[in-house]
Amino acid sequence: MRNEISASVIKRLPRYYRLLGELSKKGVVKISSKELASFLRSTASQIRQDLNCFGGFGQQGYGYNVESLRHEIGEILGVNKKQPAIIIGMGNLGRALALHIDFSERGCELIGLFDSSEALTGIMVGDIAIRNYAEIEKFCSEREPKVAVLCVPKDNAKEIADKLVSLGIKGFWNFSHFDLTYMYDGVSVENVHIGDSLLRLGYAMNKAQDN
Amino acid sequence: MRNEISASVIKRLPRYYRLLGELSKKGVVKISSKELASFLRSTASQIRQDLNCFGGFGQQGYGYNVESLRHEIGEILGVNKKQPAIIIGMGNLGRALALHIDFSERGCELIGLFDSSEALTGIMVGDIAIRNYAEIEKFCSEREPKVAVLCVPKDNAKEIADKLVSLGIKGFWNFSHFDLTYMYDGVSVENVHIGDSLLRLGYAMNKAQDN
Repeated sequence: MRNEISASVIKRLPRYYRLLGELSKKGVVKISSKELASFLRSTASQIRQDLNCFGGFGQQGYGYNVESLRHEIGEILGVNKKQPAIIIGMGNLGRALALHIDFSERGCELIGLFDSSEALTGIMVGDIAIRNYAEIEKFCSEREPKVAVLCVPKDNAKEIADKLVSLGIKGFWNFSHFDLTYMYDGVSVENVHIGDSLLRLGYAMNKAQDN
Repeated sequence: MRNEISASVIKRLPRYYRLLGELSKKGVVKISSKELASFLRSTASQIRQDLNCFGGFGQQGYGYNVESLRHEIGEILGVNKKQPAIIIGMGNLGRALALHIDFSERGCELIGLFDSSEALTGIMVGDIAIRNYAEIEKFCSEREPKVAVLCVPKDNAKEIADKLVSLGIKGFWNFSHFDLTYMYDGVSVENVHIGDSLLRLGYAMNKAQDN
C-alpha cells in the first residue's frame, strides 16, 4: 500500500510530522482534521484524504491521536533509519547545515565533513573535524556513507557527484544548483533552492500592497 | 485577473522562472508545454493549466517563447521591485544567505546586516558591514527596509519580529522555526524549513531500497 502514496502527499508529510511534534511537545493528545487544517492552512477534507492514503488512524468523532499519528508518519519518512551522511563543501552553508540541522531527527547520522581547502582541514564544526576532500575514497570505503549533502559550487557538482556515486552514495541533498535528478540509477536526489521562497515572499508582499 | 492565481500555482512559479532563465541562457528560444513538463517532472496539461491562469502566452503548435514567458512570470513575481531587505542574525546561516543568495534577482536589495553580538560589529560580509542590533531603530527610520530575513533562534523570534513590524517591515523570510504566519496584519511571511527536504530524501531512499 505504501508505494501508492502520491508524490504530493509525500511532499506534505514533513510538515505534518513537524506540526505533530510541536503539538506533542505541548501536551496535545488528540486533534481533529479541522484543527490540523487550520494549522496547516489547508482544508479538513484535504487532511483526511492525505492521511487516509496510508491507512488512516482517525476515528470519526474523535480525531487523530497526535503521538501515534506522528509515530506512523515518522515510520513512513524513515526518521529512525540513521543513514550515514556526509557534507561536501564547508563554507558558510555547509557549516550552517552541520550546526543547525538535526540530522538524527531526520533519518540521518552526520559522520563526516569534507572540503577541498587545506586551510579548513582539522577545523572542528560542532563535534566533527573537517577532513580534506582528498581523503574521500578512503573514508567512504571504511565508513560507507549513504547520503551526501552537496554544498559545492555549481561547476564542480557533477564531477563530485559522479565520484560519490561510484563510492556508494545513494542519496543527494543537493544545494549546488546543478540539477542531479535522473542522473544516476537507484540514487535519490532532493535539489534545494532556498531562493524560491524569497520570490514567493515578494509576490505575497506585492499582492498585499495592491489590495 | 492576477489576484485569482491560486496559491499552488504561485508556489510553482519560482521553478518555472528558474528553469526559463536557464533555458534562456542556453539560447533556447521556444519550448512546448510537453518539454517544460519533462524538465519539471510534471504533465503538459498541468503546465498549460498553470500558465493559462495568468493569460497564457502559448500559441498552439508553436509553444511558449522562453524569454517573454520568463519576463512575464518575473513581472508577476515582482523580481524588479528591489524591496530593501535586512538580515537579522549573522551566524553561519545569515552569512550563507548574505553571500550566496542573489537578492537582486529575487525582487530585493540587501541593505543591512544585524547581529546582537558586539564581536561581529563591523565585520564585512560581502560588501556590507555587520551592524549591532542596537542600531536597528535608527537604521529603519533612515533606510526604511521592507523585508527582514530572520536567522535568529526560535526563542527570540517573536520579540524581534514584533519590533521589526513596528519599524515598518512588511515581509519576513523566516528561518527561525517560530511560525509568524497570520501574526501581523498586512505583513507577509515565508517560513523556511530546510530540513523538510532531507526527510523527503530519506523517504525516497527507503522506497528505492524496497523496490
